[in-house]
Amino acid sequence: MTDANLPLAADIADAVRSGDISAAAIIADTLASIEALNPTLNCFTEVLAQRATERAAQLDARRAAGQDPGPLAGVPFAVKNLFDIAGVTTLAGSKINRDNPVATRDAVLVERLENAGAILVGALAMGEYAYDFTGENEHYGACRNPWDPARMSGGSSSGSGSATAAGLAPISLGSDTNGSIRVPSSLCGLFGLKPTYGRLPRTGSYPFCDSLDHLGPLARSSADLALAFDCLQGFDAGDPACAERPSLPTHERLDLGVDGLRCAVAGGYFDCTAFPEAQAAVAQVAAALGASRELELPGADAGRSAAYLVTNAEGAALHRERLRQRPQDFDADTRDRFLAGTLWPAGWYVRAQAVRRWWLEQMLAVFREVDIVIAPATPCCAPAVGTTTLNVRGELQALRPNLGLFTQPFSAVGLPVVSVPLWSESAGLPIGVQLVAAPWREDLCLRAARALETAGITLRATPPVSSAGS
Amino acid sequence: MTDANLPLAADIADAVRSGDISAAAIIADTLASIEALNPTLNCFTEVLAQRATERAAQLDARRAAGQDPGPLAGVPFAVKNLFDIAGVTTLAGSKINRDNPVATRDAVLVERLENAGAILVGALAMGEYAYDFTGENEHYGACRNPWDPARMSGGSSSGSGSATAAGLAPISLGSDTNGSIRVPSSLCGLFGLKPTYGRLPRTGSYPFCDSLDHLGPLARSSADLALAFDCLQGFDAGDPACAERPSLPTHERLDLGVDGLRCAVAGGYFDCTAFPEAQAAVAQVAAALGASRELELPGADAGRSAAYLVTNAEGAALHRERLRQRPQDFDADTRDRFLAGTLWPAGWYVRAQAVRRWWLEQMLAVFREVDIVIAPATPCCAPAVGTTTLNVRGELQALRPNLGLFTQPFSAVGLPVVSVPLWSESAGLPIGVQLVAAPWREDLCLRAARALETAGITLRATPPVSSAGS
Repeated sequence: MTDANLPLAADIADAVRSGDISAAAIIADTLASIEALNPTLNCFTEVLAQRATERAAQLDARRAAGQDPGPLAGVPFAVKNLFDIAGVTTLAGSKINRDNPVATRDAVLVERLENAGAILVGALAMGEYAYDFTGENEHYGACRNPWDPARMSGGSSSGSGSATAAGLAPISLGSDTNGSIRVPSSLCGLFGLKPTYGRLPRTGSYPFCDSLDHLGPLARSSADLALAFDCLQGFDAGDPACAERPSLPTHERLDLGVDGLRCAVAGGYFDCTAFPEAQAAVAQVAAALGASRELELPGADAGRSAAYLVTNAEGAALHRERLRQRPQDFDADTRDRFLAGTLWPAGWYVRAQAVRRWWLEQMLAVFREVDIVIAPATPCCAPAVGTTTLNVRGELQALRPNLGLFTQPFSAVGLPVVSVPLWSESAGLPIGVQLVAAPWREDLCLRAARALETAGITLRATPPVSSAGS
Repeated sequence: MTDANLPLAADIADAVRSGDISAAAIIADTLASIEALNPTLNCFTEVLAQRATERAAQLDARRAAGQDPGPLAGVPFAVKNLFDIAGVTTLAGSKINRDNPVATRDAVLVERLENAGAILVGALAMGEYAYDFTGENEHYGACRNPWDPARMSGGSSSGSGSATAAGLAPISLGSDTNGSIRVPSSLCGLFGLKPTYGRLPRTGSYPFCDSLDHLGPLARSSADLALAFDCLQGFDAGDPACAERPSLPTHERLDLGVDGLRCAVAGGYFDCTAFPEAQAAVAQVAAALGASRELELPGADAGRSAAYLVTNAEGAALHRERLRQRPQDFDADTRDRFLAGTLWPAGWYVRAQAVRRWWLEQMLAVFREVDIVIAPATPCCAPAVGTTTLNVRGELQALRPNLGLFTQPFSAVGLPVVSVPLWSESAGLPIGVQLVAAPWREDLCLRAARALETAGITLRATPPVSSAGS
C-alpha cells in the first residue's frame, strides 16, 4: 500500500521518453491489469485493446525514429463514456444510446491527450446521462471503489474515479455539471480538476446541461493533473461556450508555492461541523495553507438551488423525445427527475439563471480579497453501495443529491476547483477537499494542491484493489 | 414639407459650436415646439424644461470660455421613459411604476450623450413595459404619428419615433427587444439603429427581457445616427451583457460607399409579395445597392418563434410579483401575455435558447458570403390607431405581433440593423427597410444607409405635424 507501486503519468512519460520502457510494455501491462480488476471494479465499459496496442507501437516507432513522443508519451488514459471515441457508440451511461451509431471521430480532448503522446485504453462507467453522484447504474451495475469494492465510487464520473485510483489509467477524463469530477475524486482519493466554465472545449462529448457542463481530468498527483490540464487547454470553435482566450500553462508554475496566497475557509453554508470526516480534512488543509479566516459566503444555498433547477430543466429538455418514446428504458433513478424537469414553469428557470449571475457576483467580490477558498468536497467518505440516506445536520435526507452538497454551489458559477485527496483516520477511507479560485485561475488551485502534497497532507497510499497488487 | 425646415443634429451642433446660435435659443425653441405639438402627438411623458434650460446655459458658458462644447453641442434629445433620468420616476410605460422612487442618476447612455454636448429635453411615451409594437397604451393613451395623427407611431419606442419625426428631438433613444426601435422608425419615417446585442450598455434602463434587450438611437439622417452611435459606444461594467471590446467609430467611415459590399435580399420567410408597400420599398433599396441575389434564410421562422418564447418567459419572470399583487393595474394588452409567460414549461425556454444559437449559426454562415442583408422593416405603413388585425398572406391575423414579423428574427440573434425610411407612393406614408450586418458591423449598415440617402432613395420630407410648421 505504498505509492511507489503505482506509477504516476509523469514517471511513465519520463521512462518512455528516455527509452527505459516501451509504450507497448506499458499498454500490455495496463490491459492485463484492466482484465484482472474490472470484474471487481466494473469501471470500464469498453476496453480498446487493439487501438491502444497499435498506438503504442506507433509511438515506440516514432521515438525510435528520433521524433519527440510528447509530454505524456505512453501514458494510458481512459475517458468517461460520454466522450466520443471513433468507432464506439457514446453511451453516456444509458441503455437508450446503445442504439445510436458509433462516433466517427474522437472528442477534441481525447485528440489533444493523444497528440501529447497519451494512449486511450478505454471508456469508463458513469451514471445514466451524468445525472448521478453515486456511481450506481441500473443498466450496467454499480462502479466500485478500489478502497473497498463494497463502497460507492461516487459519480457521475464513477469509472474515472475508480480506474484512476486503481492505477488502471494514471489520467482519466470526466465531466462535472454539479460535482461529478469532484465527488468521485473525493470518494476514490484522487486529485480532480473541474476547470473554469468554458475553458476546455466539450466538442465531441455527450451533453447533459449546456450551461453547467464542464470537462476535466482526474489524476493521482497534482503534477499529473497539471500536466494533463496543460495538454487539454485551448480554444475550439466546436463548443459555443468555449472561450477564445490564450492558454496559461499551469505545470511550469506548480512549484511557485503558496507564500503570499490569501487562503480562507468557506464557512456558513459550507460549515461541516456535522460531518466529522469532512471537518477533519478541511481543518488539515486550512492549517497547512495558513487559512485562519472563515468566509460566510451568503448565497451559496441559493446558488445551489439555481443549479438544481437549471440542471433539471436543461437535462429534461435534452431528453424530452427519449422521455416520450422510451420512458421505460431510463434508469428509474433518473427518469422521475427528468420527467419533473419537463413540468415546471419557464419563469423558475429564468430566475435561476439570474440567481446564478448574482451568486457569481458574490464570489467575484470574495476573490478580490482571497485567492483560494477551502471547502469540503463531499460531506462523507464513500458510503456502501446501495445506501440511500445521509444524516444531514440531524435530518435523514436522500444521499444522492447530498453527495453534491458542497460541490454544486461552485460549479453553479463556473469557478475552477481542484479537489485534493486526504485520508480520514476515523473512516479509514479517502475524502476530498475543494480548493476554489477565481475564474481562469486554475494555476492557483494547482499550486495550493501541490503545496499540500509537498507538505505530506494529501493521500499517498495505494488502494487495496489496484494494478500494483494485480 | 421640405427637409430644410427641420434641422438635423449635425447642423445644430455645427451652428452651436461655431457660435451662430446659442444652445439656449435651440432649447427654448424646442421646448416651445414640444408644448405646441405634444397635445396632438402625445409623445412626451415628461418635459425637462428647467434641466434643459440650465444645461443649455452651462454649455453656452463653456463655449464662451473657449471650451469644446462637444460633437453634439446643443442638440436636443429625448429618451423612451425606460431610461433613468435623475429626479424622475422611470415609468417604462406602466402605471405601476409610478409608485417607484425617482431615479438617482441618469442612465449611462444619457450621460454619454450629454457628455458629448447633447441636451436632454424629456422622457418619451412607450408601450407598457416595452411589450408592444403599436404605440398604444391604456394608461397614457396612444402616441400619434406626425405623418397622420390618426395613425399609429409604432412601438414600443413610440415616443422616440413620434418626437424625432416631428423635429422635437433630432436624436432620441429607444429600446428594441423584438423590433421596438425599427417598427416606429419604419412607421414614422426615421433612420433607426438596433446595435449588436451587448454593444451598448443598458446600465440605468428598465429591463424587459435580458437576453434580447438592446438600446439604440433614432434620427432623421444616417449621419446623425452614426454621430449619436459613436457618442454612445463603449463598455460599461454595469450591464453584464455588455461586451468589453474597443469602440469602432462609424461616423468617419460613413462615406466609404458600398462599392465592393456584397448586398443580398432576404427571401423565403421575408418575402413580402403579399405586402405591396414593403415590397416596393425593398425593391428600391435592392436596386440602389445592386443586390440581385436573394437568400432563402431557412430558420428565420424558428428564430422568431424562439424570440417570442424567450421574451414571454423573461418578461413574465421579471413582472411575476407585480402580476401577483397588481394584475388589475397592467395594461389589458400586456397582462394576458405576461400571465401566459408564467405558465409554460422551462423546457420550451431552454429549447428556444438553443434554437436562437442555431439560427445565429445560420446567419453567421450567411455573413461569410454577404455583407448586407436587405429585409422589410414592417409589413405595412402606419395603420390607423385602434386597428387590431392585419392581412398576413390571405389570413386575418392580430396586427400587434405582426408589426414585428420581419424585425424579430434579426434581434433574436443580436445582429446590428439600421432601418432606413422610404416613401410609399401607394400609401402616401413612410415605410422602413432593414439593413442587417454581421455582429459588430454597424459601420456597414450605416454606410449602406448613407449610400441610399446620397442616392436620394430615402425619405427627405417633413411630416405635416412638425416643429417646422409650429
